[in-house]
Amino acid sequence: MPSKVNCGNYFEDFSLDQTLVHATPRTLTQGDVALYIALTGSRFLLNSSIKASKRYGFKGQLVDNLLVFHIAFGKTVPDISQNAIANLGYAEVKFVEPVFVGDTISVSSQIIGLRENSHKKSGIVYVSSKAINQWGRKVLSWKRWVMVNKRDPQAICTETFVPNLKLLVEYSELTLPRTLRFDLFDVAQSGSPYLWEDYTVGERIDHRDGMTIDNSDHTLATKLYQNSARVHFDEIYMQQSAFKKRLMYGGHVISICRSLSYNGLGNGLILGAINSGTHVAPAFAGDTLYAFSKIIEKWCLSPDKKIGAIRVKTWGVKNTPTEGIATPEILENNQIKYNPNIVLELDYTLLFPTK
Amino acid sequence: MPSKVNCGNYFEDFSLDQTLVHATPRTLTQGDVALYIALTGSRFLLNSSIKASKRYGFKGQLVDNLLVFHIAFGKTVPDISQNAIANLGYAEVKFVEPVFVGDTISVSSQIIGLRENSHKKSGIVYVSSKAINQWGRKVLSWKRWVMVNKRDPQAICTETFVPNLKLLVEYSELTLPRTLRFDLFDVAQSGSPYLWEDYTVGERIDHRDGMTIDNSDHTLATKLYQNSARVHFDEIYMQQSAFKKRLMYGGHVISICRSLSYNGLGNGLILGAINSGTHVAPAFAGDTLYAFSKIIEKWCLSPDKKIGAIRVKTWGVKNTPTEGIATPEILENNQIKYNPNIVLELDYTLLFPTK
Amino acid sequence: MPSKVNCGNYFEDFSLDQTLVHATPRTLTQGDVALYIALTGSRFLLNSSIKASKRYGFKGQLVDNLLVFHIAFGKTVPDISQNAIANLGYAEVKFVEPVFVGDTISVSSQIIGLRENSHKKSGIVYVSSKAINQWGRKVLSWKRWVMVNKRDPQAICTETFVPNLKLLVEYSELTLPRTLRFDLFDVAQSGSPYLWEDYTVGERIDHRDGMTIDNSDHTLATKLYQNSARVHFDEIYMQQSAFKKRLMYGGHVISICRSLSYNGLGNGLILGAINSGTHVAPAFAGDTLYAFSKIIEKWCLSPDKKIGAIRVKTWGVKNTPTEGIATPEILENNQIKYNPNIVLELDYTLLFPTK
Repeated sequence: MPSKVNCGNYFEDFSLDQTLVHATPRTLTQGDVALYIALTGSRFLLNSSIKASKRYGFKGQLVDNLLVFHIAFGKTVPDISQNAIANLGYAEVKFVEPVFVGDTISVSSQIIGLRENSHKKSGIVYVSSKAINQWGRKVLSWKRWVMVNKRDPQAICTETFVPNLKLLVEYSELTLPRTLRFDLFDVAQSGSPYLWEDYTVGERIDHRDGMTIDNSDHTLATKLYQNSARVHFDEIYMQQSAFKKRLMYGGHVISICRSLSYNGLGNGLILGAINSGTHVAPAFAGDTLYAFSKIIEKWCLSPDKKIGAIRVKTWGVKNTPTEGIATPEILENNQIKYNPNIVLELDYTLLFPTK
Repeated sequence: MPSKVNCGNYFEDFSLDQTLVHATPRTLTQGDVALYIALTGSRFLLNSSIKASKRYGFKGQLVDNLLVFHIAFGKTVPDISQNAIANLGYAEVKFVEPVFVGDTISVSSQIIGLRENSHKKSGIVYVSSKAINQWGRKVLSWKRWVMVNKRDPQAICTETFVPNLKLLVEYSELTLPRTLRFDLFDVAQSGSPYLWEDYTVGERIDHRDGMTIDNSDHTLATKLYQNSARVHFDEIYMQQSAFKKRLMYGGHVISICRSLSYNGLGNGLILGAINSGTHVAPAFAGDTLYAFSKIIEKWCLSPDKKIGAIRVKTWGVKNTPTEGIATPEILENNQIKYNPNIVLELDYTLLFPTK
Repeated sequence: MPSKVNCGNYFEDFSLDQTLVHATPRTLTQGDVALYIALTGSRFLLNSSIKASKRYGFKGQLVDNLLVFHIAFGKTVPDISQNAIANLGYAEVKFVEPVFVGDTISVSSQIIGLRENSHKKSGIVYVSSKAINQWGRKVLSWKRWVMVNKRDPQAICTETFVPNLKLLVEYSELTLPRTLRFDLFDVAQSGSPYLWEDYTVGERIDHRDGMTIDNSDHTLATKLYQNSARVHFDEIYMQQSAFKKRLMYGGHVISICRSLSYNGLGNGLILGAINSGTHVAPAFAGDTLYAFSKIIEKWCLSPDKKIGAIRVKTWGVKNTPTEGIATPEILENNQIKYNPNIVLELDYTLLFPTK
């Protein structure tokens, strides 16, 4: 009798163009929204106040883009990354339809690339995933690549294809929520006086606040997302690892940094896209996270609806304030040199009200 | 003036056939459902997706059977087990009406047995409890027996009756949710390809995943259930105990093991009954829980509605993977010999879709 | 370019009669209500059961007064107390309109007093704040005074006014929820047999239960309230402080003590007012909190609607049961001498059912 326990797919189990339908569809509720605030301390206007989200054109209680992302991402773990060694990166994360309390999202993926490592013990799997709502409308799509162990190092893996991943979602590809209008935007409510025009390309913002993360914080978050990766939950298992302890889910690091960025980017109310993301170093319970950002690009998306986009890079830093941390530099060999305290580099596009 | 502080009932305060109406009625909400996922990592289909629960015949957002059980159980603590030395066991836990978000449950109990211990310092109280919803319909009933201290060892306790507790809810006693139908069951959504027919009596499943529990995890859960037993919350008080620290609420151990069992029993979507349950050893913050199960019995309950029942025993194990742990054996003296890492033995009946 | 990061106001930034509109409006949801129960273990009837709150005249799911207070208070932090050295006290906290799940509250403040300290490094700011709901109706108002650093010790601060704060909300100033009636009050549901008539002025109640607080408990609560004070979150920053660790948000201490007071004051169902409050000493993760109370005054507010008020003082105590702790005494110099284990003194008025 075959074991009924899912041990996840290994590198040799994937094939190009394979489609995977992930369990379990998930209804987003008022409970998820409140927990997300409790887990991250997020203070962005449209996810705090139904009245405000209705004022700017939404029909109900808007679910934070990153909460949707983490829940959708969690669904892919049992099929894609149960045997992952490392999440190498994200790209082309596109937030399409807004998600409201009461919506149910379902997630599926396609294998878009495979490349065995030269030592034949593992390989890189490139995956394109999407989440749809109960009406079948796409709410989110993203790509990621992940290094996955082989079950059998002798297994022969002939399929090789490395997709051409774009590290930028062009402004023409951004989907504005259809009914969103930032007319008569009230900065007293949002808590930041700075609108789209007030930011300058090249400007750096050190977000000042820090947040120390404990074990229950990151494990509650990761369980809420129904992400089942063992590395986050099983201390006994992790004692055999190089880390000797549970690893914080990288998505929680992203959310904490986004939450810290409120102080300086408080009107970056909606994520249009995550252009690319890298977990530069692991984070653990007990670490204190800080963040700093740089304004990369600006596009005035809809002057009529008073919506502008700002492309931002945010770096997450652990255990030291950010003021002395240099922006990573690109070396001659095209490698990026990160300060050793940097844990996250996130390149994303925010929708801002214009004047 | 009598103290206004409830110190709970002692053994001599109980009498046979006594009825106790427990405070406080509790409305189950979207918040409870989300917290239960965050606290346990549960991924079962019908409690994750309103769309799915409607597809299979339910009218709204179904509340997890164990969440209902823990909240109902918590209500009995101030009256029954505030002065308990040990929860000796559960039996005949019957899930009757499904509970939906928005329902309010109220709990009452009857004393069905009493037996003083020979040393006269304590005795065993046998209790039959039930929870009803706002329409007065029974949603849950259960029996438990618990060792309770005497306030005054000199008190004379003449009432003695040991009820005949059944350690099995027969399949004819299971209540199927009236509107439930598993027609055209979609295993891609539930995350497990194995239906009722795929399990074999005697089959063992090692659920593989482990979950480390921290203090905030188990205390948040136990507070959510409004369970007020001091042993879970008061570290100063517990320093006088043999454990020297807060004890994890046994119900949280049950929920974590149920959640871990998803990997292997993913289509065991609804609890029909808990036949019996024993907390074999205590668990504490810092412990990592694992689980393994054995298929005990199978009944095809409703071929028309595609519903089958599987009686399962699940054992919770702490701080070691389960593969090397033997199923407990019954010794000649009828005692059961448990591996010292086993913390829980739960005998329960799951409703599965059939083919 | 000015920094876009809000570093909060310093003493010299405030002026008398200045009005501050605080970000971010916040919708209270079922998720907040469930989290509040999980974070505090609160068991009061009207916040546990929608059915019960409707029975006694409310239109929907009532949000706990203290949850409303903490969220409203949190809104004022970025503008008022980001650079506070100490929260010196609260007074005249008046609960006006009840808050229901679905309501959105907004908060604003007025500076009602200023007094520079003689060493010129800081000063005391007296603030009157209020929260309104989506209909513009006042749900809560309160005053607090807080010691705030000066950015520049050389700055000249000429405005001085010390307002006359009342340390009692008179019974004539209490606002009864318009539709509240405690007719035919069911003490079996509320869990306490003691009604308004049963309490005697001068009576002391030791609430017996204790609750140990961990880091995730108090930080999750404080993040839920969107309170951004660094002292609660940033372990690295706090290592430079005298405490060497994160400080527990004082409001969490209030909530835990209120929750512990259920055992003895279980029918103190609604807060009419907090007359005054003082955080006598700090609390930290790992502390176990206990509480004891004294009945100060009684008023029969509405014999027709069966509503009485009881003014109570509750003291929070850390790391020792309260039985041996003396009620604070007022010394000859009018200073109050507190037992060193006391962390909180709260003087408040509860609405009770009468017979």
